[in-house]
Amino acid sequence: MADVTLVLGGARSGKSRYAEGLVCARPGRRIYVATARVWDEEMAERVAQHRRDRACAGWETVEEPLDLTGALRRHAAADAGVLVDCLTLWLTNLMMEESGPHADVEARVAGLVAALDDLPGRIVLVSNEVGLGIVPDNALARRFRDQAGRLHQAIAARVPRVVLTVAGLPLAVKGELP
Amino acid sequence: MADVTLVLGGARSGKSRYAEGLVCARPGRRIYVATARVWDEEMAERVAQHRRDRACAGWETVEEPLDLTGALRRHAAADAGVLVDCLTLWLTNLMMEESGPHADVEARVAGLVAALDDLPGRIVLVSNEVGLGIVPDNALARRFRDQAGRLHQAIAARVPRVVLTVAGLPLAVKGELP
Amino acid sequence: MADVTLVLGGARSGKSRYAEGLVCARPGRRIYVATARVWDEEMAERVAQHRRDRACAGWETVEEPLDLTGALRRHAAADAGVLVDCLTLWLTNLMMEESGPHADVEARVAGLVAALDDLPGRIVLVSNEVGLGIVPDNALARRFRDQAGRLHQAIAARVPRVVLTVAGLPLAVKGELP
Repeated sequence: MADVTLVLGGARSGKSRYAEGLVCARPGRRIYVATARVWDEEMAERVAQHRRDRACAGWETVEEPLDLTGALRRHAAADAGVLVDCLTLWLTNLMMEESGPHADVEARVAGLVAALDDLPGRIVLVSNEVGLGIVPDNALARRFRDQAGRLHQAIAARVPRVVLTVAGLPLAVKGELP
Repeated sequence: MADVTLVLGGARSGKSRYAEGLVCARPGRRIYVATARVWDEEMAERVAQHRRDRACAGWETVEEPLDLTGALRRHAAADAGVLVDCLTLWLTNLMMEESGPHADVEARVAGLVAALDDLPGRIVLVSNEVGLGIVPDNALARRFRDQAGRLHQAIAARVPRVVLTVAGLPLAVKGELP
Repeated sequence: MADVTLVLGGARSGKSRYAEGLVCARPGRRIYVATARVWDEEMAERVAQHRRDRACAGWETVEEPLDLTGALRRHAAADAGVLVDCLTLWLTNLMMEESGPHADVEARVAGLVAALDDLPGRIVLVSNEVGLGIVPDNALARRFRDQAGRLHQAIAARVPRVVLTVAGLPLAVKGELP
């Protein structure tokens, strides 16, 4: 089983910082796979804030909004820690594709899940837990919530460690806290 | 104390599947109490998907949108595992009643909670945790959220096991994981 | 380190009652710092319900919607348990200030966090976890969610105990359950 940790958490729950700490704690290269597509100022500010807040220095940044599995295959290495921040933005990007290979969300998700089994090095996947509020009014939000939940379940079943961050602190959901 | 497990979880958190597994793991009859009222296509698809996804075969299905306590009294038996999926849909159905005995939500909830103490066999109750998002804009959603929270607290105080599912994995909130 | 417990929980998750129990369990004075501003009937009813539901008697009530740090400095004492209910309403009140010293939310939050280090007696802080649903449509709700998350992280990093209540039951996030 590959060395993969899924870090779930709510908004501003400290999930990115905790995930960065997992990579920072080890020697070797640090690769940051950013899935965000910056489409407005609020988003740009969030991305900039994230960069300023990183838990340690020395990251190589890879921007990949759609082909996350390809990016992981290209960059994961025995001597590297790879942080993906975050799966929910990647899913959002896929859901906004109207055609082309990335528009088949289920296939892309299945591809990622299958790829996780044999990636080298340490992989940390950050994702937003979005399913614990009232059912959203609009159908797209409900579909997104369903897709995110299914993605989290599929990954959690395959990887050795799952953590839920609450107020910046980790709760172990699967495996031991590192 | 009766053998009752409350399985809470967010949308697509794997709560139904986990709950089914608790019933599947034991010999004896398996009874599925479905509280869903199918009022549109999206709902019909969700119900059909749930049936296709069941963790094991051999279920007797009972549909009961309103008189859940009566259904439990009729079907719970020493040689049976009864799964209720789910309490939040039952609560929704009660809240949509405008008159009649089921329109008194508090009385119905109190009746269910009291009945749990002496039901025979194994009972597994599935319910959506909906209280961890932003306060909803509309008053009905806030009232639903309050009712669901109160229901969960009342049940959790009376039963031996409470589990929160996250990404398909169980977190023990009360009692040991089975 | 001061004796501070942060009790996080969703709507109707039993967080206030659990927090009250922490104060009730000890001898000494009991001080209830209410941050609510009662601006409509729904709110008045919630406050009245909260009072009727308190886990024990004998509370001194202090109403302080804005200067929470000042209230804590004035009322915390070696022989007292102080319950703050709740931080999210306090944050809401700050965010609604258009000018004056309390309109600088970040400074007020930093002031509270710094003050926690040397308050005497036992302090219990209740707050709503609001970050585990779908991203809210409106920008103010998103900003509130971010502020609440940052506040929780800052406090959680400084205090010895953090608890998440689920269905009225405590999950230990940091430290041992009392």
